[in-house]
Amino acid sequence: MKLHWSPRSPFVRKVVIAAHEVGVADQLQCVRTVAAMMKPHAELMVDNPLSKIPTLVLDDGTVLYDSAVICEYFDGLHAGPKLFPSLPRERMTALRRQALGDGLLDALILWRGEMMRPAAQQSDPYLASFAARTEATLAALEREAQDLESSAFSIGHVSIGCALAYLDFRFADRNWRNNCPRLAAWHATFLARTSVGATEVVDDA
Amino acid sequence: MKLHWSPRSPFVRKVVIAAHEVGVADQLQCVRTVAAMMKPHAELMVDNPLSKIPTLVLDDGTVLYDSAVICEYFDGLHAGPKLFPSLPRERMTALRRQALGDGLLDALILWRGEMMRPAAQQSDPYLASFAARTEATLAALEREAQDLESSAFSIGHVSIGCALAYLDFRFADRNWRNNCPRLAAWHATFLARTSVGATEVVDDA
Repeated sequence: MKLHWSPRSPFVRKVVIAAHEVGVADQLQCVRTVAAMMKPHAELMVDNPLSKIPTLVLDDGTVLYDSAVICEYFDGLHAGPKLFPSLPRERMTALRRQALGDGLLDALILWRGEMMRPAAQQSDPYLASFAARTEATLAALEREAQDLESSAFSIGHVSIGCALAYLDFRFADRNWRNNCPRLAAWHATFLARTSVGATEVVDDA
Repeated sequence: MKLHWSPRSPFVRKVVIAAHEVGVADQLQCVRTVAAMMKPHAELMVDNPLSKIPTLVLDDGTVLYDSAVICEYFDGLHAGPKLFPSLPRERMTALRRQALGDGLLDALILWRGEMMRPAAQQSDPYLASFAARTEATLAALEREAQDLESSAFSIGHVSIGCALAYLDFRFADRNWRNNCPRLAAWHATFLARTSVGATEVVDDA
Protein backbone atom coordinates (compact mmCIF):
# COMPACT_ATOMS: atom_id res chain seq x y z
CA MET A 1 0.00 0.00 0.00
CA LYS A 2 1.30 3.46 -0.89
CA LEU A 3 0.72 6.21 1.66
CA HIS A 4 1.07 9.86 0.71
CA TRP A 5 2.93 10.87 3.82
CA SER A 6 4.70 13.75 5.53
CA PRO A 7 6.59 13.50 8.83
CA ARG A 8 4.90 16.55 10.35
CA SER A 9 1.26 16.08 9.34
CA PRO A 10 -0.80 15.17 12.41
CA PHE A 11 -3.46 13.46 10.30
CA VAL A 12 -0.77 11.32 8.69
CA ARG A 13 0.54 10.51 12.13
CA LYS A 14 -2.94 9.40 13.13
CA VAL A 15 -3.13 6.78 10.37
CA VAL A 16 0.42 5.55 10.95
CA ILE A 17 -0.34 5.11 14.66
CA ALA A 18 -3.46 3.16 13.68
CA ALA A 19 -1.37 1.03 11.30
CA HIS A 20 1.04 0.21 14.13
CA GLU A 21 -1.81 -0.53 16.54
CA VAL A 22 -3.36 -3.09 14.20
CA GLY A 23 -0.11 -4.52 12.88
CA VAL A 24 -0.06 -3.37 9.25
CA ALA A 25 2.59 -0.63 9.48
CA ASP A 26 5.18 -2.80 7.72
CA GLN A 27 2.90 -3.00 4.68
CA LEU A 28 3.01 0.77 4.15
CA GLN A 29 5.20 2.27 1.48
CA CYS A 30 5.41 5.89 2.62
CA VAL A 31 5.91 8.44 -0.15
CA ARG A 32 6.82 11.92 1.01
CA THR A 33 4.17 14.31 -0.27
CA VAL A 34 4.18 17.91 0.90
CA ALA A 35 0.60 19.19 0.75
CA ALA A 36 0.55 22.82 1.85
CA MET A 37 -2.86 24.44 2.10
CA MET A 38 -1.79 27.31 -0.16
CA LYS A 39 -0.12 25.11 -2.75
CA PRO A 40 -2.09 22.34 -4.44
CA HIS A 41 0.09 19.32 -5.19
CA ALA A 42 -0.46 18.17 -8.78
CA GLU A 43 0.74 14.58 -8.36
CA LEU A 44 -1.24 14.04 -5.16
CA MET A 45 -4.36 15.45 -6.82
CA VAL A 46 -4.35 12.57 -9.30
CA ASP A 47 -5.18 10.34 -6.33
CA ASN A 48 -7.03 12.89 -4.18
CA PRO A 49 -8.34 16.04 -5.89
CA LEU A 50 -8.65 17.77 -2.52
CA SER A 51 -4.81 17.72 -2.35
CA LYS A 52 -4.80 16.44 1.21
CA ILE A 53 -2.77 13.89 3.09
CA PRO A 54 -3.00 11.18 4.22
CA THR A 55 -4.15 9.51 1.02
CA LEU A 56 -3.74 5.74 0.66
CA VAL A 57 -3.43 3.85 -2.62
CA LEU A 58 -4.04 0.10 -2.37
CA ASP A 59 -2.14 -2.38 -4.51
CA ASP A 60 -5.16 -2.78 -6.81
CA GLY A 61 -5.25 1.00 -7.38
CA THR A 62 -8.16 1.73 -5.03
CA VAL A 63 -7.69 5.12 -3.39
CA LEU A 64 -8.83 5.86 0.16
CA TYR A 65 -9.03 9.10 2.14
CA ASP A 66 -9.45 10.89 4.58
CA SER A 67 -7.68 9.74 7.79
CA ALA A 68 -10.89 8.37 9.32
CA VAL A 69 -11.57 6.19 6.27
CA ILE A 70 -7.99 4.92 6.10
CA CYS A 71 -8.02 4.05 9.81
CA GLU A 72 -11.31 2.17 9.46
CA TYR A 73 -9.84 0.31 6.48
CA PHE A 74 -6.76 -0.73 8.48
CA ASP A 75 -9.03 -1.85 11.32
CA GLY A 76 -10.71 -4.29 8.95
CA LEU A 77 -7.40 -6.01 8.19
CA HIS A 78 -6.80 -7.61 11.58
CA ALA A 79 -8.55 -9.83 14.10
CA GLY A 80 -7.34 -8.14 17.32
CA PRO A 81 -9.11 -5.59 19.53
CA LYS A 82 -10.79 -3.08 17.26
CA LEU A 83 -10.10 0.66 17.11
CA PHE A 84 -13.64 1.04 15.75
CA PRO A 85 -15.88 -0.82 18.23
CA SER A 86 -18.82 -2.72 16.78
CA LEU A 87 -21.23 -2.28 19.71
CA PRO A 88 -23.38 0.78 18.88
CA ARG A 89 -22.87 2.79 22.09
CA GLU A 90 -19.11 2.21 22.22
CA ARG A 91 -18.82 2.86 18.50
CA MET A 92 -20.66 6.18 18.68
CA THR A 93 -18.51 7.32 21.61
CA ALA A 94 -15.33 6.41 19.72
CA LEU A 95 -16.53 8.15 16.54
CA ARG A 96 -17.65 11.25 18.42
CA ARG A 97 -14.24 11.41 20.09
CA GLN A 98 -12.56 10.99 16.72
CA ALA A 99 -14.62 13.93 15.42
CA LEU A 100 -13.59 15.97 18.47
CA GLY A 101 -9.87 15.23 18.05
CA ASP A 102 -9.99 15.74 14.27
CA GLY A 103 -12.04 18.91 14.70
CA LEU A 104 -9.53 20.28 17.18
CA LEU A 105 -6.73 19.47 14.72
CA ASP A 106 -8.58 21.16 11.87
CA ALA A 107 -9.00 24.27 14.00
CA LEU A 108 -5.36 24.25 15.12
CA ILE A 109 -4.09 23.91 11.55
CA LEU A 110 -6.29 26.78 10.37
CA TRP A 111 -5.25 28.85 13.38
CA ARG A 112 -1.58 28.31 12.61
CA GLY A 113 -2.21 29.16 8.95
CA GLU A 114 -3.85 32.40 10.08
CA MET A 115 -0.93 33.27 12.36
CA MET A 116 1.55 32.69 9.54
CA ARG A 117 -0.10 35.21 7.20
CA PRO A 118 1.41 38.64 6.75
CA ALA A 119 0.28 40.74 9.73
CA ALA A 120 -1.97 42.95 7.61
CA GLN A 121 -3.87 39.88 6.33
CA GLN A 122 -4.64 38.44 9.76
CA SER A 123 -8.17 38.61 11.12
CA ASP A 124 -8.47 39.37 14.83
CA PRO A 125 -11.96 37.90 15.27
CA TYR A 126 -10.85 34.74 13.48
CA LEU A 127 -7.78 34.39 15.73
CA ALA A 128 -9.94 35.00 18.81
CA SER A 129 -12.43 32.38 17.64
CA PHE A 130 -9.71 29.74 17.34
CA ALA A 131 -8.42 30.55 20.81
CA ALA A 132 -11.91 30.33 22.35
CA ARG A 133 -12.75 27.05 20.65
CA THR A 134 -9.43 25.49 21.57
CA GLU A 135 -9.86 26.48 25.22
CA ALA A 136 -13.41 25.11 25.27
CA THR A 137 -12.28 21.85 23.68
CA LEU A 138 -9.46 21.41 26.18
CA ALA A 139 -11.91 22.05 29.03
CA ALA A 140 -14.31 19.47 27.60
CA LEU A 141 -11.48 16.95 27.20
CA GLU A 142 -10.38 17.56 30.79
CA ARG A 143 -13.92 16.69 31.94
CA GLU A 144 -13.76 13.54 29.78
CA ALA A 145 -10.22 12.50 30.76
CA GLN A 146 -11.21 9.89 33.31
CA ASP A 147 -13.56 8.25 30.82
CA LEU A 148 -10.79 8.29 28.22
CA GLU A 149 -8.50 6.56 30.68
CA SER A 150 -11.01 3.87 31.61
CA SER A 151 -12.44 3.04 28.19
CA ALA A 152 -10.87 0.63 25.70
CA PHE A 153 -8.30 2.27 23.41
CA SER A 154 -10.12 3.38 20.26
CA ILE A 155 -9.81 5.61 17.21
CA GLY A 156 -11.10 8.40 19.45
CA HIS A 157 -8.06 8.07 21.67
CA VAL A 158 -5.79 8.15 18.62
CA SER A 159 -7.34 11.37 17.30
CA ILE A 160 -7.38 13.17 20.63
CA GLY A 161 -3.85 12.04 21.42
CA CYS A 162 -2.59 13.29 18.05
CA ALA A 163 -4.34 16.64 18.48
CA LEU A 164 -2.74 17.17 21.89
CA ALA A 165 0.67 16.14 20.53
CA TYR A 166 0.20 18.71 17.77
CA LEU A 167 -0.51 21.33 20.44
CA ASP A 168 2.83 20.40 22.00
CA PHE A 169 4.56 20.56 18.62
CA ARG A 170 3.16 23.82 17.24
CA PHE A 171 1.64 25.63 20.25
CA ALA A 172 4.06 24.68 23.02
CA ASP A 173 3.85 28.18 24.49
CA ARG A 174 0.20 27.64 25.37
CA ASN A 175 1.15 25.08 28.06
CA TRP A 176 -2.16 23.25 27.74
CA ARG A 177 -1.30 20.96 30.65
CA ASN A 178 -1.56 23.82 33.16
CA ASN A 179 -5.36 23.71 33.23
CA CYS A 180 -5.77 20.05 32.28
CA PRO A 181 -4.03 17.83 34.86
CA ARG A 182 -6.19 14.74 34.29
CA LEU A 183 -5.94 15.07 30.54
CA ALA A 184 -2.17 15.47 30.84
CA ALA A 185 -2.02 12.27 32.90
CA TRP A 186 -3.99 10.39 30.26
CA HIS A 187 -1.86 11.87 27.47
CA ALA A 188 1.30 10.58 29.17
CA THR A 189 -0.11 7.05 28.82
CA PHE A 190 -0.85 7.78 25.16
CA LEU A 191 2.70 8.99 24.49
CA ALA A 192 4.05 5.84 26.14
CA ARG A 193 2.41 3.53 23.60
CA THR A 194 4.78 1.79 21.19
CA SER A 195 2.71 2.93 18.21
CA VAL A 196 2.98 6.55 19.29
CA GLY A 197 6.69 6.42 20.05
CA ALA A 198 7.28 4.90 16.62
CA THR A 199 5.74 7.97 14.96
CA GLU A 200 7.33 10.75 16.97
CA VAL A 201 7.35 14.03 15.06
CA VAL A 202 10.73 15.57 14.38
CA ASP A 203 10.90 19.10 13.02
CA ASP A 204 13.59 18.47 10.44
CA ALA A 205 12.81 21.39 8.15
CA MET B 1 -33.62 14.13 19.63
CA LYS B 2 -32.54 17.76 19.59
CA LEU B 3 -30.63 18.90 16.51
CA HIS B 4 -28.63 22.12 16.54
CA TRP B 5 -29.75 23.30 13.14
CA SER B 6 -29.56 26.14 10.65
CA PRO B 7 -31.46 26.32 7.36
CA ARG B 8 -28.41 27.27 5.32
CA SER B 9 -25.73 24.94 6.69
CA PRO B 10 -24.88 22.29 4.09
CA PHE B 11 -23.64 19.87 6.76
CA VAL B 12 -26.93 20.25 8.62
CA ARG B 13 -28.73 19.61 5.35
CA LYS B 14 -26.72 16.43 4.94
CA VAL B 15 -27.92 14.96 8.24
CA VAL B 16 -31.53 16.05 7.68
CA ILE B 17 -31.50 14.37 4.25
CA ALA B 18 -30.11 11.23 5.91
CA ALA B 19 -32.86 11.44 8.55
CA HIS B 20 -35.51 11.60 5.81
CA GLU B 21 -33.88 8.74 3.88
CA VAL B 22 -33.99 6.40 6.87
CA GLY B 23 -37.35 7.58 8.23
CA VAL B 24 -36.40 9.35 11.47
CA ALA B 25 -36.87 12.98 10.40
CA ASP B 26 -40.08 13.29 12.40
CA GLN B 27 -38.14 12.49 15.58
CA LEU B 28 -35.92 15.55 15.18
CA GLN B 29 -36.54 18.64 17.24
CA CYS B 30 -34.61 21.27 15.27
CA VAL B 31 -33.27 24.17 17.30
CA ARG B 32 -31.98 27.10 15.30
CA THR B 33 -28.32 27.62 16.19
CA VAL B 34 -26.26 30.10 14.22
CA ALA B 35 -22.64 28.94 14.33
CA ALA B 36 -20.51 31.45 12.44
CA MET B 37 -16.84 30.56 12.10
CA MET B 38 -15.78 33.91 13.51
CA LYS B 39 -18.23 33.86 16.40
CA PRO B 40 -18.18 30.95 18.83
CA HIS B 41 -21.69 30.14 20.11
CA ALA B 42 -21.64 29.77 23.89
CA GLU B 43 -24.79 27.68 24.23
CA LEU B 44 -23.81 25.31 21.42
CA MET B 45 -20.35 24.88 22.94
CA VAL B 46 -21.89 23.29 26.03
CA ASP B 47 -22.81 20.40 23.73
CA ASN B 48 -19.97 20.71 21.21
CA PRO B 49 -16.90 22.73 22.24
CA LEU B 50 -15.90 23.06 18.58
CA SER B 51 -18.97 25.31 18.12
CA LYS B 52 -20.04 23.50 14.99
CA ILE B 53 -23.34 22.34 13.59
CA PRO B 54 -24.89 19.86 13.16
CA THR B 55 -24.72 18.64 16.74
CA LEU B 56 -27.29 16.10 17.94
CA VAL B 57 -28.42 15.63 21.55
CA LEU B 58 -30.22 12.34 22.23
CA ASP B 59 -33.05 12.10 24.73
CA ASP B 60 -30.69 10.52 27.30
CA GLY B 61 -28.30 13.48 26.96
CA THR B 62 -25.73 11.72 24.76
CA VAL B 63 -24.21 14.20 22.32
CA LEU B 64 -23.14 13.25 18.79
CA TYR B 65 -21.18 15.14 16.14
CA ASP B 66 -19.99 15.67 13.39
CA SER B 67 -22.32 15.10 10.42
CA ALA B 68 -20.72 11.75 9.52
CA VAL B 69 -21.25 10.40 13.03
CA ILE B 70 -24.84 11.64 13.21
CA CYS B 71 -25.63 10.08 9.82
CA GLU B 72 -24.14 6.75 10.87
CA TYR B 73 -26.18 6.91 14.08
CA PHE B 74 -29.41 7.51 12.13
CA ASP B 75 -28.51 4.62 9.84
CA GLY B 76 -28.46 2.29 12.84
CA LEU B 77 -32.06 3.16 13.73
CA HIS B 78 -33.76 1.51 10.77
CA ALA B 79 -33.93 -1.84 8.99
CA GLY B 80 -34.14 -0.58 5.39
CA PRO B 81 -31.38 -0.23 2.78
CA LYS B 82 -28.35 1.22 4.52
CA LEU B 83 -26.65 4.52 3.72
CA PHE B 84 -23.47 2.99 5.24
CA PRO B 85 -23.02 -0.35 3.46
CA SER B 86 -21.72 -3.24 5.54
CA LEU B 87 -19.76 -5.05 2.80
CA PRO B 88 -16.14 -3.81 3.05
CA ARG B 89 -15.61 -2.73 -0.57
CA GLU B 90 -18.95 -0.94 -0.87
CA ARG B 91 -18.48 0.60 2.57
CA MET B 92 -15.05 1.99 1.76
CA THR B 93 -16.30 3.46 -1.52
CA ALA B 94 -19.22 5.13 0.26
CA LEU B 95 -16.97 6.49 3.03
CA ARG B 96 -14.37 7.75 0.56
CA ARG B 97 -17.11 9.51 -1.38
CA GLN B 98 -18.43 11.01 1.86
CA ALA B 99 -14.91 12.31 2.59
CA LEU B 100 -14.74 13.77 -0.92
CA GLY B 101 -18.11 15.54 -0.63
CA ASP B 102 -17.40 16.74 2.91
CA GLY B 103 -13.90 17.82 1.92
CA LEU B 104 -15.27 19.81 -1.01
CA LEU B 105 -17.78 21.45 1.33
CA ASP B 106 -15.06 22.30 3.85
CA ALA B 107 -13.03 23.92 1.09
CA LEU B 108 -16.02 25.84 -0.29
CA ILE B 109 -16.95 27.17 3.15
CA LEU B 110 -13.37 28.31 3.80
CA TRP B 111 -13.19 29.80 0.31
CA ARG B 112 -16.38 31.79 0.90
CA GLY B 113 -15.05 32.91 4.28
CA GLU B 114 -11.90 34.14 2.57
CA MET B 115 -13.88 36.03 -0.07
CA MET B 116 -15.96 37.74 2.58
CA ARG B 117 -12.95 39.22 4.38
CA PRO B 118 -12.06 42.86 3.90
CA ALA B 119 -10.14 43.06 0.60
CA ALA B 120 -6.85 43.90 2.32
CA GLN B 121 -7.07 40.73 4.43
CA GLN B 122 -7.61 38.36 1.52
CA SER B 123 -4.81 36.03 0.44
CA ASP B 124 -4.43 35.55 -3.31
CA PRO B 125 -2.56 32.22 -3.12
CA TYR B 126 -5.21 30.91 -0.72
CA LEU B 127 -8.03 31.96 -3.07
CA ALA B 128 -6.20 30.39 -6.02
CA SER B 129 -5.70 27.17 -4.08
CA PHE B 130 -9.44 26.86 -3.38
CA ALA B 131 -10.24 27.44 -7.04
CA ALA B 132 -7.73 24.81 -8.19
CA ARG B 133 -8.91 22.19 -5.70
CA THR B 134 -12.56 22.80 -6.51
CA GLU B 135 -11.92 22.44 -10.23
CA ALA B 136 -9.93 19.23 -9.67
CA THR B 137 -12.66 17.80 -7.45
CA LEU B 138 -15.37 18.59 -10.01
CA ALA B 139 -13.27 16.93 -12.72
CA ALA B 140 -12.81 13.84 -10.53
CA LEU B 141 -16.53 13.72 -9.77
CA GLU B 142 -17.33 14.00 -13.48
CA ARG B 143 -15.14 10.93 -14.09
CA GLU B 144 -16.99 9.14 -11.28
CA ALA B 145 -20.50 10.25 -12.27
CA GLN B 146 -21.49 7.06 -14.04
CA ASP B 147 -20.43 4.97 -11.06
CA LEU B 148 -22.36 7.29 -8.76
CA GLU B 149 -25.43 6.76 -10.93
CA SER B 150 -25.14 2.99 -11.01
CA SER B 151 -24.23 2.30 -7.37
CA ALA B 152 -26.73 2.01 -4.53
CA PHE B 153 -27.59 5.34 -2.90
CA SER B 154 -25.22 5.85 0.04
CA ILE B 155 -23.88 8.45 2.43
CA GLY B 156 -21.36 9.26 -0.29
CA HIS B 157 -24.16 10.32 -2.61
CA VAL B 158 -25.67 12.47 0.15
CA SER B 159 -22.38 14.30 0.79
CA ILE B 160 -21.53 14.86 -2.85
CA GLY B 161 -25.08 15.93 -3.64
CA CYS B 162 -25.06 18.45 -0.77
CA ALA B 163 -21.69 19.85 -1.84
CA LEU B 164 -22.92 20.41 -5.40
CA ALA B 165 -26.13 21.99 -4.11
CA TYR B 166 -23.99 24.32 -2.00
CA LEU B 167 -22.05 25.27 -5.14
CA ASP B 168 -25.40 26.20 -6.70
CA PHE B 169 -26.40 28.17 -3.60
CA ARG B 170 -23.21 30.13 -2.95
CA PHE B 171 -21.16 29.88 -6.14
CA ALA B 172 -23.87 29.97 -8.81
CA ASP B 173 -21.71 32.18 -11.04
CA ARG B 174 -19.20 29.35 -11.47
CA ASN B 175 -21.72 27.35 -13.53
CA TRP B 176 -20.17 24.03 -12.52
CA ARG B 177 -22.47 22.11 -14.87
CA ASN B 178 -20.75 23.54 -17.96
CA ASN B 179 -17.79 21.14 -17.70
CA CYS B 180 -19.61 18.32 -15.90
CA PRO B 181 -22.53 17.09 -18.00
CA ARG B 182 -22.62 13.56 -16.54
CA LEU B 183 -22.33 14.84 -13.00
CA ALA B 184 -25.10 17.35 -13.70
CA ALA B 185 -27.32 14.52 -14.94
CA TRP B 186 -26.67 12.51 -11.79
CA HIS B 187 -27.26 15.58 -9.61
CA ALA B 188 -30.67 16.09 -11.21
CA THR B 189 -31.65 12.64 -9.93
CA PHE B 190 -30.33 13.62 -6.49
CA LEU B 191 -32.37 16.83 -6.41
CA ALA B 192 -35.47 14.86 -7.39
CA ARG B 193 -35.35 12.70 -4.25
CA THR B 194 -38.09 13.37 -1.70
CA SER B 195 -35.51 13.71 1.09
CA VAL B 196 -33.64 16.39 -0.83
CA GLY B 197 -36.72 18.33 -1.83
CA ALA B 198 -37.83 18.35 1.80
CA THR B 199 -34.62 20.14 2.80
CA GLU B 200 -34.39 22.76 0.09
CA VAL B 201 -32.26 25.71 1.15
CA VAL B 202 -33.96 29.09 1.21
CA ASP B 203 -31.84 32.18 1.66
CA ASP B 204 -34.14 33.96 4.07
CA ALA B 205 -31.53 36.20 5.67
